[in-house]
Order: sequence, then structure tokens, then C-alpha cells
Amino acid sequence: MKRRSQFQFVSILLMASTLVFSHVFADAYQTRSLRVNSTRLEQRIEKLAGYGKTSEGGVNRVAFSEEDIQSRTYILSLMEKAGLKTRIDEAGNIIGRREGTDPSLLPIAFGSHTDTVPYGGKFDGAVGVLGAIECVQVLEENSVKTRHPLEVIVFTDEEGGLIGSKAIIGTLTSEALAVTSHSGKTVREGIEALGGNPDVLDRTVRKKGDIKAFIEIHIEQGSILASKGIDIGVVEGIVGINWWDVTIEGFANHAGTTPMDKRQDALLAAAHFIIAVNKVVTGVPGRQVGTVGRIRAEPGAPNVIPGKVVMSLELRDLSAEKIDSFFHKIVKEAEIIAEKTGTKISFSPIEATAVPTPTDFSIRKIIAESAEDLGLSYLVMPSGAGHDAQNMAKIVPTGMIFVPSIGGVSHSPKEFTPAKDIANGANVLLHTILKIDQKF
Amino acid sequence: MKRRSQFQFVSILLMASTLVFSHVFADAYQTRSLRVNSTRLEQRIEKLAGYGKTSEGGVNRVAFSEEDIQSRTYILSLMEKAGLKTRIDEAGNIIGRREGTDPSLLPIAFGSHTDTVPYGGKFDGAVGVLGAIECVQVLEENSVKTRHPLEVIVFTDEEGGLIGSKAIIGTLTSEALAVTSHSGKTVREGIEALGGNPDVLDRTVRKKGDIKAFIEIHIEQGSILASKGIDIGVVEGIVGINWWDVTIEGFANHAGTTPMDKRQDALLAAAHFIIAVNKVVTGVPGRQVGTVGRIRAEPGAPNVIPGKVVMSLELRDLSAEKIDSFFHKIVKEAEIIAEKTGTKISFSPIEATAVPTPTDFSIRKIIAESAEDLGLSYLVMPSGAGHDAQNMAKIVPTGMIFVPSIGGVSHSPKEFTPAKDIANGANVLLHTILKIDQKF
Repeated sequence: MKRRSQFQFVSILLMASTLVFSHVFADAYQTRSLRVNSTRLEQRIEKLAGYGKTSEGGVNRVAFSEEDIQSRTYILSLMEKAGLKTRIDEAGNIIGRREGTDPSLLPIAFGSHTDTVPYGGKFDGAVGVLGAIECVQVLEENSVKTRHPLEVIVFTDEEGGLIGSKAIIGTLTSEALAVTSHSGKTVREGIEALGGNPDVLDRTVRKKGDIKAFIEIHIEQGSILASKGIDIGVVEGIVGINWWDVTIEGFANHAGTTPMDKRQDALLAAAHFIIAVNKVVTGVPGRQVGTVGRIRAEPGAPNVIPGKVVMSLELRDLSAEKIDSFFHKIVKEAEIIAEKTGTKISFSPIEATAVPTPTDFSIRKIIAESAEDLGLSYLVMPSGAGHDAQNMAKIVPTGMIFVPSIGGVSHSPKEFTPAKDIANGANVLLHTILKIDQKF
Repeated sequence: MKRRSQFQFVSILLMASTLVFSHVFADAYQTRSLRVNSTRLEQRIEKLAGYGKTSEGGVNRVAFSEEDIQSRTYILSLMEKAGLKTRIDEAGNIIGRREGTDPSLLPIAFGSHTDTVPYGGKFDGAVGVLGAIECVQVLEENSVKTRHPLEVIVFTDEEGGLIGSKAIIGTLTSEALAVTSHSGKTVREGIEALGGNPDVLDRTVRKKGDIKAFIEIHIEQGSILASKGIDIGVVEGIVGINWWDVTIEGFANHAGTTPMDKRQDALLAAAHFIIAVNKVVTGVPGRQVGTVGRIRAEPGAPNVIPGKVVMSLELRDLSAEKIDSFFHKIVKEAEIIAEKTGTKISFSPIEATAVPTPTDFSIRKIIAESAEDLGLSYLVMPSGAGHDAQNMAKIVPTGMIFVPSIGGVSHSPKEFTPAKDIANGANVLLHTILKIDQKF
């Protein structure tokens, strides 16, 4: 959906809503004092962290593991307490539904995931799922009926490559099903273990026009909110990610007998390259990031000049054009380094690439308004990490709510978000859902 | 033995030799036209390369392998043809001896090794052993008797840590015997397979005053001689080698969500470090070398900022003081890098360190004179690589003769030294032996 047509769509809906002006405001007035139960939410995060708890205080609950499977029984029980009717879809996603008052309206969906990276933390994913269930429970406890049906979605195997949301938008391939996950099971076997049926994945596919809106709360996983003391991140989009394998070919030779000026040292060239990546990426203002995270030098002995280095290069930004421009600058720098060090540097793009995904403009606005109404500060910011929301955005107007990550730590036992911040995020989600329900 | 006392020793011998002036010159006159048989030497290098020949034209004849064991039968047969009486010592070294005319004189020893690195070349070691045998064969064929006994030594497992020469000087430890070699056998098992007896290694130990002189021909393994078009390298010493493990501790974090200015990237710090090592080592004139050959970045994923890097640092020079000074400069640079990148850099010395070993001044002089007599150009130069000669130098005045390595390539199937250069080296060895025999 293009920006322009979204605007038109919102305008028409706003105009239409003026026709039922008094009704909308009466609803908004009734619900504006609603708040999630922060203590209960905190307790549930601790309880969920018990599934796969590690001695370092983290959580090892990779998708399809015994811990993952057991934790889902707990999640299902919470959903049912909140008045959600639950089912497991063909991809193993848990879907909890609460009907609305108007059967002609599309569901408003929200959720996240409960699987973790190996030896990860308590908050990544869990905040989004338990926050979503908490919102429905508050509505249930306060007998607030929404016009639209509500759906809480717990996506399968987010950390293994956004598997559940890929299935929902119809892009989960048979190659992806054959991949062995951290649990030891293939994704196919894992989905079967969750109660899904990977042979008929098409039955769970949702199309454009099937869902009204999708919203995900997530920890920021970066330090921007926490370091600036801001309560809420309104995600403007999920960055595109491009990966390359960078190969430097020099000449492996005896480290004792080869004079310094006769070397073609691939690792020395790699050192210049790593610094060049950093300079190019930080050379212009913006929130782009560039990383060399993996490196292998061959033959890899202390007494042999490295003849070959293979490294990863990752670039992320909200703009595909900017990623492209950085890459071209880096290639130019590499040519100079190759010339200077007597090496050859080549780039090979890796398939696992995400395109930049903007969130929906009108939902972003509603999230910001909800934060304002709650007296919370907010920052419009990109998500540097990938999320199921980026898949959902392909078929439904999507928004994301970030809560602070202390120290920007994530995928680690040290991952931490205070209970107050989590409650803030859940309250913003609650009022975002209500505003969408009331306005559209 | 200190430099000064060597001078005195040489002076006394030279004075003594004037007493038998006519006899020495008569001998020198008789032998000055002697030359090795270049064609035979070349053929034997090819024949030896047949043991462990690889499809790339190299040689895979690691110590204690079947190929190593079979090749030794060939070497023993050549030695016997040259009139050497052979034996296997307790460390598996092959020792071939030819008696001299004066039973009161100490033996002049020379040799090298026949084992290779995995998938190495034809010349490393082989040139020294076959060149040594060729010298004795030429004497035998020309009925030239030396005053001193001659000993050709083929050292066991040079590439695995100068094992045979360590045994001869009495420094082969039980820990070294327990190490598993490239053959799959432990060094102990390997020595037994060669016919040695590792339980009584003390029987093969030679002490100061047991051997007159030791000389080794070897390929340079660097490109200095070949690139300058010089025939012979007169080795002034074998460099000291110091190794450190360098650990950089940063902070592993999400590569998408951690802004560039909030990173403590251990690999970025490592890149600055590698460049600093290069700058420090090339910052002053000299033939020192410094290498980072091994690197590991953790966790090593394209989408995670490396939190830890462990690398090797190797420094080599003829002067221990210079190595020390370079290391201290590098540590200072590391402190600046650590400060700048928010990381911690620490150094841990590794035991496998060789101290700089100068060759014997008077033998060096005789090698140079021999080259001059033969009309060959020569360069006094360090050996950047380790050799059995560096062990022998601890108990006997030692010299080394280098022949050019084309392109400086070694430990590779591409290792190459032309037959003419090998013959030059063997001729210099022959006349060095004769001069030592005649002068001392």
C-alpha cells in the first residue's frame, strides 16, 4: 500500500467517523482510564522465564525445544483466562481470538513471539506476547467490548528467521522447512511438534484486506530510549539488512623469512577494510549501521602470513538507496586497500537480506497520540532488528511500539527492561487498539 | 662461547697453522678445483621428492609417516655409496661417519633434515641433506682424505619442533615426546618407528667440545637472495621468535540496534591493532618482522558486534633487545587503541619462543671466503626461520649457508631453487669443510 493511498484511506475513514461522533467519544471517554496490571504482567514475565531458565539468570528457550513446547501450554492458559478462544494454526502459531460487537469488521491483531535465541534473555518477544494478552485481559475484566474482533498472535520460531509470520503471509518455503533449527529438529519437524501441519500451510495464509491492523510491542534491543530517558519508541520502520561475504586474497608465506615489504598480507588488508567500513558508515549523519562480525584468516597460524581472509559485511538502514550508496563507497575503499596491500578483494552478496519496511503512517500517529494521552515521552525511530511485524507489514497496516532496553543489551541473560517500562508499552498498545477500534 | 674468546681461539689456531704452512697450502691447492656433481645432486633431489609426492608437484613427507620412513632407506643407501658408515641414534637421527687421518681430531658435522611440513615442497631440508652427502661423495671419488672425521647428520622431525637436534643437545623433554605429530604418532612412537630408543636419549647427547664445527645448507625461504640476484647467504644468526596471545575484550551486542557511537567493537579494535603492529615493525630500518597470523572473533556472527577477539602476535629479530623494544611500542599503541574503542587489550606470552642465536664468527668468515674463492656473490643475512643449526650452535661453533628461494616461497608445493643454486651451496659447503679441516 503506498503512502498516498494510505492517507486517502485514513481521510475517508475519519470523515466517516464524524457521522458517529458522539458514539466514538463516549467509548473513548469510558476507556481512557483503563490501565494494564503492571504487577501481574511482571509476574507473568518471571513465570514465563522459568521455562528454559539458565544459571546466569537468562532463558534458553529456542523454538521447538521441550522448554518452548511446555511454555506454550502456559501461554494458552493465560489466553483463555483473558477470554481468548485459542487455536494452533498450520504453522504452529498460537492464535487467540476475542470476537467484537460488529461481525462485519476485520480483526485487529497484535502479538510477538515466545522463543528465544540460545541463552538469551527474559524480555525479547515475551514482553510483546504477555503485553498483548494483558491488554485483552484488562478489556475482559472491565467488560469493554471492541467493535472489531481482536487476535493475539504468538509467532512460531521468530529467532530462526520469522518462520510463523512468513507462513501467515505465504512466503515460508520448503527450503526453510528443511533447515535444522537450534532445537535439533528441522523447522518442519518443529512445526509438527507444536501441533501444526506444514503440508497445508496455505490454509493459514492471510491476504491483504484480511486484517485491519497489526501492532507489536518489543524491547528496543538498542540503547537509544534508555540513554535518552524516553519511555516509548514509535517505530517508523524496520531497517533493510544486506549481507556480503568479503574475500581478501593475498599470499600465504613464511612469517620469519618474508620481509615486511615483500608481503601480501590478507589480514593486514582486512584490518584496513574493517576500519574503512566504520569510516564510511559513520562518515555521514544518520542511524545507519555497518558491521564486520565474522572473520576467518587462513591458514591461521601465528608463523604464517595470512594468505586469505573471509569476512562478513552487514549494512542496515531504513533506506535501500542509502545501503546501496554505502556499499559502493566501501567497494571503492576496498579497491584502494587492495592496490596498497597487493591483495584482491571481492564481494559476494548473501541471500538472507531484508528490504527496508516502513510502518503504517496512520498507526504510527495513533501510537504517538496514545503515548501523549498517557503522559509518556516518545521518539520516532527505526528498528535496527528484524521482527515479525516486517512480514505482517506486507499484508496489513502495521505499527511497532518499543520499550527501553537498559544498556541496549539483548540476546543475552543481561537483557533487562524495568516493569514500569513494560507496563507503559502495554498501556500504549491497549490505547492504540482502542483508538483503532473506535476511529476506523 | 663468547665472541672474544672465539677470536682468541681462531688466532691461536691460525698461528699454530703457520707452523705447517707448506702442508696446508699443498692440501688446499690439491682440493681447490673440487666441485660437486650438480646433475647427480639434482637427480637425487627429484628422486627423494618421489617419497610423498603430491599431485600439485609438492611433497607430503611429515616426520614418522610411511613416506618418511621409506625415504630414509634411500638416504642410507646414498650415504653408504659415499663411503659413510651409518647408524641410527637413540633419537632416530641418521648419522653417517667418515673417519679422518688424525684420530685425535674432533668430527666436522653437517646436515639438515628430510621431513617436510604437510603438503610442503622438494627443497626445504632435502637440499641440506643431499648437499652434505654429495660433498662426502666428491671427496670419496677424488680420494681426498680429511684430517678430521666427517659426520653427516639427518635430523629427526625438524618441522615438528627441531626434535632430533634437541635430542643431540640434551633438551628434548618428555612433554615433547608425548606430543602427537602430523603423522598421527606421538613423537615417542615416531622415534621408535625410526629405530630410535626414546628411553635412553642421554646416550646420544653431545656436549661442548665433542664436535669441531657444524654447518647446514638450507634454502633461504625468503626472497632476499633471489630478488637481489645473490648466490649465497652467509647466515649471521637465527632470529629470536616471540609469540603472544593478544586478547581484546569489548562488548558483544546486536549489530542492528546498537548505534555506531555506542559500540565496543573488539574486531574494530583488532583492526587498529594489526595496523599498529605493522607500523611499529616497519617504523625503523632493519630486518625485523612482525605478524598477526591467527585471529578469532567471538561470537562470530554477521549480525553481532564482536565482543572478544583473540589473535596471535609474533615478533622476530636477531636482537632480543629489539624484539623487546618493539613489543613495548606495540603495548603502548594498544593502550591508545583500547582507550579509543572502549575495549581492554591484554597480552599473554606463549612458551614456544626461540632466543636469537648468532652463528660462529670464524665459520661465517670461512663460508664467505669459500664463496669468494668460487666466484660467487654472497650476502651476510639473518635466518628468519628456525633450523636445527640453532640448537647445534649451543654446543658447537655453527655456520649456515643459504641458497636462493625463487619468489621467497617455502612450505609450499611451489617452493623452488634452481639446480645451479643448489650446486653453488653444496660447493660452498664442500670448501668450507675443507678449509676448516685444513686450517684448524
